[in-house]
Amino acid sequence: MIDLRSDTVTRPTDAMRRAMYEAETGDDVYGEDPTVNRLEAEVAELTGFPAALYVPSGSMANQLAVYAAIRSGDEVWTHVDSHVSIDEQGGVAVLARGQLRTFTGPGPAPSTEWLEDGLRERHDIHRAPPRLISLENTFGGTVVPVAEQRRVADFARANGLLVHLDGARLWNAATALGLTPAETARGADSLAVCFSKGLGAPVGSALCGGADTIARARRARKLLGGGMRQAGVIAAGALYALRHHRGRLADDHRRARALAEGIAELPGLSVDLAAVHTNMVFVGVPRGRTDAYLAAFREHGVAAGASYGGAIRLVTHLDLGDADITAAVDAIAKAAAALA
Amino acid sequence: MIDLRSDTVTRPTDAMRRAMYEAETGDDVYGEDPTVNRLEAEVAELTGFPAALYVPSGSMANQLAVYAAIRSGDEVWTHVDSHVSIDEQGGVAVLARGQLRTFTGPGPAPSTEWLEDGLRERHDIHRAPPRLISLENTFGGTVVPVAEQRRVADFARANGLLVHLDGARLWNAATALGLTPAETARGADSLAVCFSKGLGAPVGSALCGGADTIARARRARKLLGGGMRQAGVIAAGALYALRHHRGRLADDHRRARALAEGIAELPGLSVDLAAVHTNMVFVGVPRGRTDAYLAAFREHGVAAGASYGGAIRLVTHLDLGDADITAAVDAIAKAAAALA
Amino acid sequence: MIDLRSDTVTRPTDAMRRAMYEAETGDDVYGEDPTVNRLEAEVAELTGFPAALYVPSGSMANQLAVYAAIRSGDEVWTHVDSHVSIDEQGGVAVLARGQLRTFTGPGPAPSTEWLEDGLRERHDIHRAPPRLISLENTFGGTVVPVAEQRRVADFARANGLLVHLDGARLWNAATALGLTPAETARGADSLAVCFSKGLGAPVGSALCGGADTIARARRARKLLGGGMRQAGVIAAGALYALRHHRGRLADDHRRARALAEGIAELPGLSVDLAAVHTNMVFVGVPRGRTDAYLAAFREHGVAAGASYGGAIRLVTHLDLGDADITAAVDAIAKAAAALA
Amino acid sequence: MIDLRSDTVTRPTDAMRRAMYEAETGDDVYGEDPTVNRLEAEVAELTGFPAALYVPSGSMANQLAVYAAIRSGDEVWTHVDSHVSIDEQGGVAVLARGQLRTFTGPGPAPSTEWLEDGLRERHDIHRAPPRLISLENTFGGTVVPVAEQRRVADFARANGLLVHLDGARLWNAATALGLTPAETARGADSLAVCFSKGLGAPVGSALCGGADTIARARRARKLLGGGMRQAGVIAAGALYALRHHRGRLADDHRRARALAEGIAELPGLSVDLAAVHTNMVFVGVPRGRTDAYLAAFREHGVAAGASYGGAIRLVTHLDLGDADITAAVDAIAKAAAALA
Repeated sequence: MIDLRSDTVTRPTDAMRRAMYEAETGDDVYGEDPTVNRLEAEVAELTGFPAALYVPSGSMANQLAVYAAIRSGDEVWTHVDSHVSIDEQGGVAVLARGQLRTFTGPGPAPSTEWLEDGLRERHDIHRAPPRLISLENTFGGTVVPVAEQRRVADFARANGLLVHLDGARLWNAATALGLTPAETARGADSLAVCFSKGLGAPVGSALCGGADTIARARRARKLLGGGMRQAGVIAAGALYALRHHRGRLADDHRRARALAEGIAELPGLSVDLAAVHTNMVFVGVPRGRTDAYLAAFREHGVAAGASYGGAIRLVTHLDLGDADITAAVDAIAKAAAALA
Repeated sequence: MIDLRSDTVTRPTDAMRRAMYEAETGDDVYGEDPTVNRLEAEVAELTGFPAALYVPSGSMANQLAVYAAIRSGDEVWTHVDSHVSIDEQGGVAVLARGQLRTFTGPGPAPSTEWLEDGLRERHDIHRAPPRLISLENTFGGTVVPVAEQRRVADFARANGLLVHLDGARLWNAATALGLTPAETARGADSLAVCFSKGLGAPVGSALCGGADTIARARRARKLLGGGMRQAGVIAAGALYALRHHRGRLADDHRRARALAEGIAELPGLSVDLAAVHTNMVFVGVPRGRTDAYLAAFREHGVAAGASYGGAIRLVTHLDLGDADITAAVDAIAKAAAALA
Repeated sequence: MIDLRSDTVTRPTDAMRRAMYEAETGDDVYGEDPTVNRLEAEVAELTGFPAALYVPSGSMANQLAVYAAIRSGDEVWTHVDSHVSIDEQGGVAVLARGQLRTFTGPGPAPSTEWLEDGLRERHDIHRAPPRLISLENTFGGTVVPVAEQRRVADFARANGLLVHLDGARLWNAATALGLTPAETARGADSLAVCFSKGLGAPVGSALCGGADTIARARRARKLLGGGMRQAGVIAAGALYALRHHRGRLADDHRRARALAEGIAELPGLSVDLAAVHTNMVFVGVPRGRTDAYLAAFREHGVAAGASYGGAIRLVTHLDLGDADITAAVDAIAKAAAALA
Repeated sequence: MIDLRSDTVTRPTDAMRRAMYEAETGDDVYGEDPTVNRLEAEVAELTGFPAALYVPSGSMANQLAVYAAIRSGDEVWTHVDSHVSIDEQGGVAVLARGQLRTFTGPGPAPSTEWLEDGLRERHDIHRAPPRLISLENTFGGTVVPVAEQRRVADFARANGLLVHLDGARLWNAATALGLTPAETARGADSLAVCFSKGLGAPVGSALCGGADTIARARRARKLLGGGMRQAGVIAAGALYALRHHRGRLADDHRRARALAEGIAELPGLSVDLAAVHTNMVFVGVPRGRTDAYLAAFREHGVAAGASYGGAIRLVTHLDLGDADITAAVDAIAKAAAALA
């Protein structure tokens, strides 16, 4: 089975396992795990933030950012299809008790008109006060243009709002843009990055931010049950991935493009090649046939996942080489032919 | 000043005050206030629900409906501009901890395609499970077509969702449709109605629903601090309004139409006459000039309010007669001329 | 039936009803109800606070105080049997998401040792940070000694904590102490007072506090659904009660004492006369017999309520005169004899 | 430094690290990690529950149990000094929005009288409905007698309440009682066990319960951000500890007793030897001197922690041998002499 469901499915490499085997540890609840401390320092420096916090998942990184930024009843603005909106079980409402106000559209950033409309009557007693804008980069595999991100950040700053950036795949965005991670994150008040998705570590994400934000998030991490003891054993894998696997993301991007081009012409399927910026390919299928296509792909040896609009999502990653891509295109071609 | 800001601004009439003066009372926290009990029985019967609960505000009626219907982390579907979404301070997130998923568009009901998309991956572990659809009738003064409401209710029932109807202005909808309140509410599992907005009582709304829903809402009303003692003194005003003021809503509607027609041709202003179904008129003004127009209206003796898209909202009500409408059109004409 | 269940059961007097009939009104959500504004100004002045807010119930006054004072996850200290702890349906957890830490004992205020223990490890990452001490005066009808309240307030101030005073029956406490309401409330950062319980108004309480607290509470009142429209019609009753019924509380206290003394010697019953400070009498009955005694009282024409330890609570109020007390003692004597 | 602060400070052994190095993995969010699945199956079988869930911390295990068991506004009964009450940052209020009702006393279980009092007026509209009793075993190192636990469980069952058992140190309790873990947990509806504390694994706990409870907790784990990807790398360490380190807990207990006896006679210090059941020793020091004693211990080479009453807590664990205990007694003796 060629597993294209997500870049979360990768297995730790042998070198990564060895790093974990040899990890120095301590009790991280007391702040005494040297490997965790090193990872947090390195990721903060790399992303250009004063501080960072290692957490068990990307969801926790995002939720802690929201929890630290808002008060109960504040409004959080995000894309209707962002991870924060649609993949975290309503956590913004349950944990921080923020109300979502969502924008739509293929673009990953809200228009200035939409932003301005959101400020109307902001002090009216009926309204939830706006407080946080949450962007995502990459968003559905597409890179947020630097100017767009800056426009939103400038608007936020000028109006007393904060910006969180869900950068679970920030490494992919930086690779595609040819920028450093810090340059790619610029303008955000807090940033979530993932060691698992693109980089292939077994467990963990980090929240990056100012000292106060991270202090509040550290307390809230314990509240959510994310305080781990000798977390160095997994932080070592994350640290290894951070140091050694960012460079290879260009390969994932090249392979995603090959995959997209191989599929684009197949009968019944459609791919917007211009939207393939990094390691994700979205394949349109006839409305109502998503499950049938997923089953046919699987029958021919390709595991894929459904995206919310009914498209099929394919993701390249650490565990796949060029030959897997060729084989995947063949398999999908057969499946498409069978269903056409 | 001709106050067209809202139909909430009306003063109790003398007859209503007399009814309140003479009200039988008891301690409603113990369920012993006969006037409250009578009001709850009459409104339940009139709307076709097994039970009803008197509450201090429309917000509380809606929030109790949500609180009784969902669990923390469930998804609530509503129009982005509905009262539940935009006028209750994020209460769905704070009180019931539900996450909003919002539809847009001029229509008051979501399309079937939007509804179906919302069910995709509903059992996926990443998703907030959908649980409640909240409609509003009237919505921005427009009536929800009976067939539309039925379509949504049928979809909900077929898929294990509940439907709440924010009928703060259900009386207006029923009047415009020529139906009874019960016929107008059909298909909803719970219903909020207001005694203040159209009917002119000083205080209060009711939540209508099944016996279980109302039992849960009664507990939650106490939790929110909405349990009142000798509430009969205000329930009497609501009961009077319910019995005597529904019949006169057609006058409000006729006046709103006269107002709309009088304004439609003025320079700089626009009105969609086809959307004037009941007692509300929305007046478009040039983008960014809303506050200037509101000030000019006020200077000429008309109080109005801003709506979220920047339009100006005018609402007819119990305290306004035909002469007020004529005078308001004159005043607005002068304001428009001054600003043109 | 002589109703001694609570001082909440009183009916509005004719003079009070007339005040309500004649009340000036406006839309209080817009801050335009002159009667509400007058009531808020008078109660703030009388209690010595910068501002006040009219709300539908004592529960809402307390819950708004907590909501305005703490953040999610803070600790609230109160007596295990206080109204906030036991009579508001867990509202502190649901609304403000504060965690209760409760003290016990007959005294209404915590010991200094208990307070100091609560600060231990307050900055430890495992702990909910203490933030608010909630006292109650009167507490179970007993008056909190001035020195005790000051001791707790001084401790709070010295350690960065806030003090809320649930003064639903502050008027009774002030009467018993021979102090003004402002003197009786001294040391508290916020104060809840009730117009219904001792004073006999049909509906409403007020939260008193600093300008910031009241501004936050005003927003939160709307969030909870406590924003009412022409609330002047009930505020007028509260205002009447505030102006005319405080002076008569000494009668209620005298009658409670007569009731206590009349019962103290009856077979099977016990009363701690030293704890009868105001208008409440707690009657001890044999363990496990509370419901039987309540039923017997009722059979003989006296309605009473159970208190949490199994004692029976009797409360004197506006609707009872000296003859009612004599009759109640007779009835209870018969009931006690029948059960002995 | 001899670290007696907690049994959470242990470092993974070489054998444990090797197990982690060689762990089979998969994506546990998809339920595909074979090591996690094996761990969950083994711990469920060992504790006698139908299902189990691996989580990053003991706090998360407890909080998920509460979240799965109650609804917002329900009451949770626990000891005032339990981990759920005092070491989880008010999580019960923030996450499940339950209100604590706490019992006190040296005993780990509430008296039957206290339980019965808690049911009084349970259906009254003012009250938070009781729903869950949370016990802890061991509690402060003491074992809950089997009969006590059964008494509470029987009471709960008879009255429609659930019982959660925080068995972070259930392994120690079972060792001291000479029972199996399943026998030790009997009567509980859900159980939290820890792989880190007594057993010395680097990361993780498990929640055990019925199939429905675990299904709800699995969803809620994702909501809290506790869903990890290739969690097999740490689950392997937990599995190793579960299989190989339970047998050695008797050594920890023997060493704790030696420690307690060595300290009991020292000047200024007191130890209740009868309360040393497992691996914890609580050392009383003069009131207000806790920090001074902790500093003196540390100066002489012993790290210890403060407990909430001001006592000092010493905990034996995997990384300490007999010689460490002898050395610790010597060091503490010197510190005590210096401060006496």
